[in-house]
Amino acid sequence: MPHIALPEGLPGIRGAMAFRPETAKPLNEIVEVLLRGPSTLSPGERELIATYVSYLNDCHYCQSSHGAIAAAHLKGDEDLVKRVKADFQHADISDKLKSLLVIAGKVQRGGKNVTAEDVADARNLGATDLEIHDTVLIAAAFCMYNRYVDGLGTIQPQDEASYRERGKQVAREGYIAVSKTYLPAEAIAR
Amino acid sequence: MPHIALPEGLPGIRGAMAFRPETAKPLNEIVEVLLRGPSTLSPGERELIATYVSYLNDCHYCQSSHGAIAAAHLKGDEDLVKRVKADFQHADISDKLKSLLVIAGKVQRGGKNVTAEDVADARNLGATDLEIHDTVLIAAAFCMYNRYVDGLGTIQPQDEASYRERGKQVAREGYIAVSKTYLPAEAIAR
Repeated sequence: MPHIALPEGLPGIRGAMAFRPETAKPLNEIVEVLLRGPSTLSPGERELIATYVSYLNDCHYCQSSHGAIAAAHLKGDEDLVKRVKADFQHADISDKLKSLLVIAGKVQRGGKNVTAEDVADARNLGATDLEIHDTVLIAAAFCMYNRYVDGLGTIQPQDEASYRERGKQVAREGYIAVSKTYLPAEAIAR
Repeated sequence: MPHIALPEGLPGIRGAMAFRPETAKPLNEIVEVLLRGPSTLSPGERELIATYVSYLNDCHYCQSSHGAIAAAHLKGDEDLVKRVKADFQHADISDKLKSLLVIAGKVQRGGKNVTAEDVADARNLGATDLEIHDTVLIAAAFCMYNRYVDGLGTIQPQDEASYRERGKQVAREGYIAVSKTYLPAEAIAR
């Protein structure tokens, strides 16, 4: 049971966002810009970073929902998502993305863990300053979302199928568009 | 030196926000709503929560800047801010705020640490569901801001005076208004 009286029938962050539309708006805008906005990293790559950090933070809802969105962007390759979580150094992803996941994992433990060498490695593998910036902010932001979802004791479904269906929808339509189905108008970022 | 080429002369999160105006907008909006918007917690109380979490995350820039903003809201009482960081259970704050700081400290370590008993304690001391929600989200959000500021290796001034001056300005004018002095128009939340 959630720690506070969240609206029923809305699992994970959706219940929290419906409870507080004023903060839902910027919270949705951050993922829309960082994970779906114009970028030289694909939406699938960015969702893998979000999924990996949520896995490190042991947030079932976030790693399941973003893992499903990542898979939807990656032609349904759920095995790749699992491999990235368990052992990304041996997953079938680019060396550049591996170097960004190293940085994301350090941010998850605390920002000071990121070293000049980590950043030099990423840059040598072709990462731009903007990609490094966005990796740090995606990792930092999911340290927020994960704590928000778990800290309120939100309902987190255990069946993979519900995450898979919603993952396809979010991959197709985006965070802000999908949020219109359960948030009031004042919570919708423009 | 920052890990990436941030604009010069803008310390801490300001340099990062100027580098990426698209994310600066929702990042500023979150603190404007959570720390200054309508609430039954005073701006000073909310800034103390933000300062305490930033202290736990050992982020010099964030604990100094929000500590200064908190002090500005609290009639310049910098000793109270220091006391809250070092030993809030013996600080001159309400028992309700102490119970919320307990929750914030648990969220800092990870959302799952918050227990039903922590929430019941806060509620018994008069905390509303909205206050508990906002405490969880303030703590979670500063786990993001702290990692963003430290993870990019931003410049973080060591002199207290600069934080004190800026703290007064932000307390008076607000985050979004002050950000207009260094961010482009597209980064300004409406």
